[in-house]
Order: sequence, then C-alpha cells, then structure tokens
Amino acid sequence: MNSGKADLGVLGLGTMGAMLALNFAEKGFDVALFNRTVEKAARLRDDTPDLAGRLHPQASLEDFVAGLATPRVIVLMVNAGTAVDDQIDALLPMLARGDIVIDAGNTDFNDTRARNARLEGTGIHFVGMGVSGGELGARHGPSIMVGGDEDVWARLRPLLEPISAKFDGSPCVAWLGTDGAGHFVKTIHNGIEYADMQMIAEIYGIMRDGLGLAPARMAEVFADWNTRGLASYLVEISAVVLAEADPETGAPLVDLIVDEAGQKGTGRWSAIEAQKLGVGATTLEAAVSARIISSQRGQRAEAATAFGSLALAGSDFSADAAGIAELESALETAKIIAYAQGYAILSAASAEFGWNLPLGEIARIWRAGCIIRSGFLRDIMTAYESGGEEANLLLNPAFARRVETGQAALRAVVAKAVLAGIPVPALSAALAYFDDYRRAHGTANLIQGQRDLFGAHTFKRLDRDGVFHHQWPAV
Amino acid sequence: MNSGKADLGVLGLGTMGAMLALNFAEKGFDVALFNRTVEKAARLRDDTPDLAGRLHPQASLEDFVAGLATPRVIVLMVNAGTAVDDQIDALLPMLARGDIVIDAGNTDFNDTRARNARLEGTGIHFVGMGVSGGELGARHGPSIMVGGDEDVWARLRPLLEPISAKFDGSPCVAWLGTDGAGHFVKTIHNGIEYADMQMIAEIYGIMRDGLGLAPARMAEVFADWNTRGLASYLVEISAVVLAEADPETGAPLVDLIVDEAGQKGTGRWSAIEAQKLGVGATTLEAAVSARIISSQRGQRAEAATAFGSLALAGSDFSADAAGIAELESALETAKIIAYAQGYAILSAASAEFGWNLPLGEIARIWRAGCIIRSGFLRDIMTAYESGGEEANLLLNPAFARRVETGQAALRAVVAKAVLAGIPVPALSAALAYFDDYRRAHGTANLIQGQRDLFGAHTFKRLDRDGVFHHQWPAV
Repeated sequence: MNSGKADLGVLGLGTMGAMLALNFAEKGFDVALFNRTVEKAARLRDDTPDLAGRLHPQASLEDFVAGLATPRVIVLMVNAGTAVDDQIDALLPMLARGDIVIDAGNTDFNDTRARNARLEGTGIHFVGMGVSGGELGARHGPSIMVGGDEDVWARLRPLLEPISAKFDGSPCVAWLGTDGAGHFVKTIHNGIEYADMQMIAEIYGIMRDGLGLAPARMAEVFADWNTRGLASYLVEISAVVLAEADPETGAPLVDLIVDEAGQKGTGRWSAIEAQKLGVGATTLEAAVSARIISSQRGQRAEAATAFGSLALAGSDFSADAAGIAELESALETAKIIAYAQGYAILSAASAEFGWNLPLGEIARIWRAGCIIRSGFLRDIMTAYESGGEEANLLLNPAFARRVETGQAALRAVVAKAVLAGIPVPALSAALAYFDDYRRAHGTANLIQGQRDLFGAHTFKRLDRDGVFHHQWPAV
Repeated sequence: MNSGKADLGVLGLGTMGAMLALNFAEKGFDVALFNRTVEKAARLRDDTPDLAGRLHPQASLEDFVAGLATPRVIVLMVNAGTAVDDQIDALLPMLARGDIVIDAGNTDFNDTRARNARLEGTGIHFVGMGVSGGELGARHGPSIMVGGDEDVWARLRPLLEPISAKFDGSPCVAWLGTDGAGHFVKTIHNGIEYADMQMIAEIYGIMRDGLGLAPARMAEVFADWNTRGLASYLVEISAVVLAEADPETGAPLVDLIVDEAGQKGTGRWSAIEAQKLGVGATTLEAAVSARIISSQRGQRAEAATAFGSLALAGSDFSADAAGIAELESALETAKIIAYAQGYAILSAASAEFGWNLPLGEIARIWRAGCIIRSGFLRDIMTAYESGGEEANLLLNPAFARRVETGQAALRAVVAKAVLAGIPVPALSAALAYFDDYRRAHGTANLIQGQRDLFGAHTFKRLDRDGVFHHQWPAV
C-alpha cells in the first residue's frame, strides 16, 4: 500500500461494485471498500483470500475517505438516481480540491450533466463512467466509457487501463468527452444492443416458424456465422443458448423459456435521446417496441385467437445452403444499418453537447468487454480512423459496398417474412431506412403541399429559390 | 356587453390568437383584446368592421383584466415556453379566486402539469387547452381539447361549444381530464397526424415510382377513396394538392415542391411520451424518422449516387382496378393499426397520470375541426362508446374484422414495395406491429436466454411457475 493509503476506493458493493473492486485488486491496486451495510465490505475481503491483502474494508465513510491516497479516486457503484446524490452530499465535506468522484452506475447522462454542473467550481471532479459487460465484464475486463473533465484522464488512465477488457492487447477504455459523454455513449451502446438482439431474434423466428428448424440446428448455423462477418458475442451466445438442453427434461431449454423480454430502461433512453436530437433510430425503436409487445403476453394470446383464422400463403424460405446464406447476409446488412443509426445518434449528440466524440475510439473500446463486442466494430473503427468523415456510416465506401452486396438478401428476407406473417420489425425498419436514405427524390413534397394547404407552413421549390405559399382551392 | 364587461379576453394576437378572437366575437361574445404590441389589438378590430362592436382592444394589461366579467376567462395564445410563464406572472397579481387562465398554445403537457402544480392553492384555475385545425380551424371551428380542474368546465363550456367545430351538430370540444390532459391529447393527435400523412405519402411514392401515375390521375384516385372507408380531410386534401397546377408553368405543382418536410416538434413529443410510457408507437416513430430523412436532402443525394448501381427487379404493382383497390385496402388497414398505437398511448397516459381519459369522447371531438378528422373516427367513437373495453383497438371486434380483411392487401403492398426498393417505413412498421401483436408465441424467449447468460437477468418457464437462472456454459 503506497504510503499506507489505498489507490482508490469503491463505494457500494452490490454485484457490480464488488466485481469491479476485485478486478482492481487483482490488477495490483489497493482498494478501500465501503458499503452502507458495512459488514459487506469485510465479507468481500474474507470471501476472496487470494486478494484479501489488497482489499481494505472501512467501517465508516470518514475512514474510507481518510484511507485514500490523494488526489482521491472514489468509484460510486450505487443505484442510479437519488442514491448517487446522497453519496455525493455525504462525501463532499470530506473531499479536497483535485479529488475525483466517479459514478460508474447505469445513470441517465442528463443526471450526469446536472451533477457536473453542480460540482463545477468546487474543485472536485465528477466523472460519469459507463461500464459495459455485466457481472463477468466488471470482474474480468469491461468496456469503459469515461466522461468528465479531460485533465482527470491522466490520473484515471493508469487505474482503468489495467482493469479494462483488451482487444489484441489494446485496452477498451477511453476518455470520450466532458460531463455526460461517457454515460451517453453507454446508453447508445445499449440501444444498439437492443437492435442487434432483436434482429437476431427475428432471424430465429424465421428459422423456427418459417423453416421449422430445431434449436440444435439453429445453434449450428449461428456458430457457423460466428466464424465470419457476423462474428460477435451476441451471435456466439445465441448459438450457446439454442444448443442448451434443459437439465431436467432434456428438451431444448429455449423452448421452455417464456417469450417475455425484460428491459431496464436504457434501450428506451436511447430512443428518447435520438428523438430529442432529431435522429431517425427506427431499428432501436423497433427493438424497444418488440420488447414491449413481448411483455403483453395476455393481449397477444387474445389477438392470436382473434386473428387465428388468417390463412397465409405459407413460407417461401428455404433451409438449404443458399437459404441460410441469405439469412446470414440479411442479418449482416440490417446490422450495419442499425449501427449506422446508432452512430448517427452519437454524431448528433457530439455536436449538440460540444463533446467532439471520438467515433473511431468508441468503436475501438467496444471491440471487447461489452455486450455488442464484435469483429465488425473493428471495421467501424477503421472506417472512422482512416479519416472517414461521412455524415452516415452508410456513406462510408467500405460499408456502402457491404450494404450494396447484402441489400438484395435483406430485401428478399423481409418480403418473404411479410408474406408469411412472420414479424420482422427491426429488419424491415432497417431496410426502409436504407431505401428512404438512398432516395434522392423523396415523397415529402406531398407532405409539404398538405402542410401549406392546412397550415400555411410554406414550401421550397425545385425550380427557384425562396419560400412559397400557394393559394390552394378551398376545401 | 354584459354589465359593461367582456365575456372573455384573448391575450396574444398572432395568427392563431386573432382567429380565435374573431371566432368568439362572431359567436356573439364580447372579447377583450390585448397584445404586447398594443396597436395590433386596435388593428384587428379596425380590420374586421362587421365584428368590431364585440372586439375591445385594451391599452394595458391592467385595463384588459379590469374589463373582464368575473370570474374572468383569459385565453393566452402566446409562444409556448417562457412567454406563458411571463404572462402568468404578470397576470397573477391582478386576478381573483375563481378566475381562469387558459393556455391555448401548442404547449408540452409536462409544462402544463408543472403550471397546474404551481398555481394549485392560489384559487386561480389554469387550463391547458389543445386547439387543432390550424388557422382556418381557429377562425371557423377548431377541435378543442380541454384539461384542468373539472369544475371550470361548467364555466367554459358555454364559451367553447359555440366556437368549436361541429360534427352532425355535435360540438367538437370536451373536458378530458385534469392538468395536462388537453395538451397531452393534442400531442398524440399530432403524432397520429404524422403517421397518417406519412402513410399517404408512402402510397403516393408507390403510385409515382412503382406505377408511374401522373399526379392528376393520383388525385382522381384519392378523391375516389375519399368517398369510402378512407374518407378524411387528409385524403381529401391529398387529392387537392395532387390536382393543383403551378399557376405559372402549368406543371403539376406537387412535382415542383422540394421533398423536405418541416416539423414543429409535436410529432417528436408524441414519440418521446410513448417511449416514456412504454408503449410501442413504431408507426409514429417511422413518420418522424421519415421527416428527418427528408430534411437530409444533401445526404440523400450522396447516398443515391453511392447506391446508384442497385439493380432492382422492377415493380410488381399494378395500376388496374384491382391494384388500386389493393393500395386502398393497404392504406386503410395500416391506418387502423397506427390509430391503435395512438390510442394505446392515450390509454397508458390515462392510467399513468390518473386522467381517466374518455377515449370515445376523444374520437368524438376529433371527427371535425382537426387535421385528422374523418368518418373513421366515428367508428372508433362507436367502438369505445358501445362499451369497448379492449386493451387495444385491434382487439375490438369491428376493427379486428376490418384488419383481418385488409391485412392481405397490406402484406402484398409492403412485400412489393420492399422488392421494388420503394421505402414504406410506416406501412411496414404497421404490419410488423400487427404480426408481432397477434403472435401468441413470440421470440423473446431467445432474448431472455441471452440476457440470463450475460447478465443473470433470469427468466420464466412455460412449464412451471417461478423465476429461474440457468448455469450456462462459459463463453
């Protein structure tokens, strides 16, 4: 322990806080521990004998603060909301200029911005830090998104790089911008995660209801896809989940799980922020909506009865190699479009909040540790770091080529699903976005005509400059 | 003038305020007028000689308030935002218990709720009032959505019923609930309006790019549709806009209008509130997104070049009677689904804010005066007023029958558009919502498996009660 003081403190020892503390200790840091229920800190140390020497439970908040090397680094891992404010209030009188308080919880970036504003001028640095990767990530290497004053990064970097996930040796942690930048990027990460998971679930629905494949066969397909362009944690675990048998009955476990998806709110936040920023994020919205519909199981059963007589034409999907390859290409193409929407949100937020978000760096730190980790993110990183200044990922030449190649498969899959009555909300939202985005001559001219007729909202003309109002016939 | 005092006052004489004031005067009310630029009030009277006797411009806010019969009714029609608060602040010292201040602007219902809370206990009633129908509606009969203390309704009803739109003699105005109910319902009205307009624009896109119809022919089709199930103001004015020739060149005017749609924010608000309430509103979201994409005209041109080489199969649409009837049926079916989403938002808000919103009554007052007015709303009114207690409009037997009949057309149109590369974001969102909603056995079981694997989020099982966590293989 340097000068008898801990390198940092972790306050709040729920699952995530405890895992982070162990991760720090394992990387050689002395970690002061504090928890409202103080015994929890001692128990964590006692339960982890091999790291016990670097875990320092404290009996009071005063001892906890006093036991930290200065400038102090305190990681809060408490429930998002008032608990964070309460802890800040309790800590403030004990802290000194230069100390750093990190909120590592799943916090709404608007709250982080407000807390930054509140602490401005106190000399205490407030850092909103997004931590992705769940329990296992926190313990063995999460992806870490840091927001706050840039000058704290020099102090935090030596602490955070060792505990972060590594991709080819490169630590998946970065300072992304001031105040709420870290929590904002984490929110959009989760929105993309929703879209990614929903698209996989839609392909699963086609395999199940359109092709009648057994889960074990689907697992093989996903495992195979995981060796190529779709290689990613989510595709990998889809194979694992589909391959799993119920220990008791031996039946495919996935067939026994109730089709009601939970959500913890960050997907919804991402959709709200996209709306506030005026960015089209229909694949994320489709994913949030699908989770909502999944939770309305009673209504769905009622609707299934009400519309039970629908005679659909049957499915044109094919389980042969070409048919499976078509699904693979469709999923990959739709995924690119979903990520393009997610990155468009980041880009708009960067401008709106003056963050100057490093888009390539964000892709870099998402390559490992987080739920959407994938080889694909390396391609996004490359696109941005090779000077890609495109307004939208779809305009980047490398991605444009992939979408150009894959769009026919996406188109075919959506059309077949639509005709077979298999819902593909996110896949079809992706395709509609692409087709709308690539259309030089859209249909909003009719909308502008309507708006000028009923509200004198005026319109522009193709053949001359200016703003015009037309005297429409009386309706 | 009763007892030398005006029946009510209108404060803020921009276009909407002036039109409302004239509407009140025409219906026989004495209207005190005040505007920050005081000459505007006198000018409005002088410009309207036939109503001048009932228009009473005031030179100061004090005179304006003093000239009103008590309890006073003051209609604010100023810019939404701080201007409303400023006017409230200025008025408060001059008002007495029982006086009523109405904000008739396009206000975010959250602000209306805050203002209601702020004025609680002062004895002054604050009313948030949604007014739909644009300039012409305000002048000759808008649809009016009133929120606030229920006991003010007796005082307001005799003032508002005469100026409101009438449908078969029934006034399109109602008290809908406390505090922000009126402004909330207006917001969702606008969200539905966005979806309705977008779906019409998508059908227009199919007629133009899939069928190659001339605007004059499209105008005939929309005019014909306006005689049946789709009969509505928006379909009617679509025909008018498409039929209109540019006065100078003689070309179809719609072909000369730039395809960039504006938006004033209420569509976005409706999407945000739907997200906050946890209601799937993908057709509204698709419409907002399409307007955003329309405004990115430079990016679209770039994307059109980047993807210019896409060779699509051509269109399977047909311009014969059956093909046109298929488009009609598709539009009508998608519209039902969009309204079902809109009503689901109202229903959720009613529960969340304790408004007990009268859903049938809302359909009743939307039948005339507002932008989405249509015969179709009479059907919704009937569905709710005949005791429809369904959780979703799609479960109402009458609407279920219509969707059951029309879904095949919607399915065929979406599939053809998808294959032809014609974007149908709102139509496809509607179909996906329907197919997802009517599926007893969804695909969220895979999502729950993934969430349990990476985050120990647990799942429920079909074959037994309880909440389960599975020991998944290490990934």
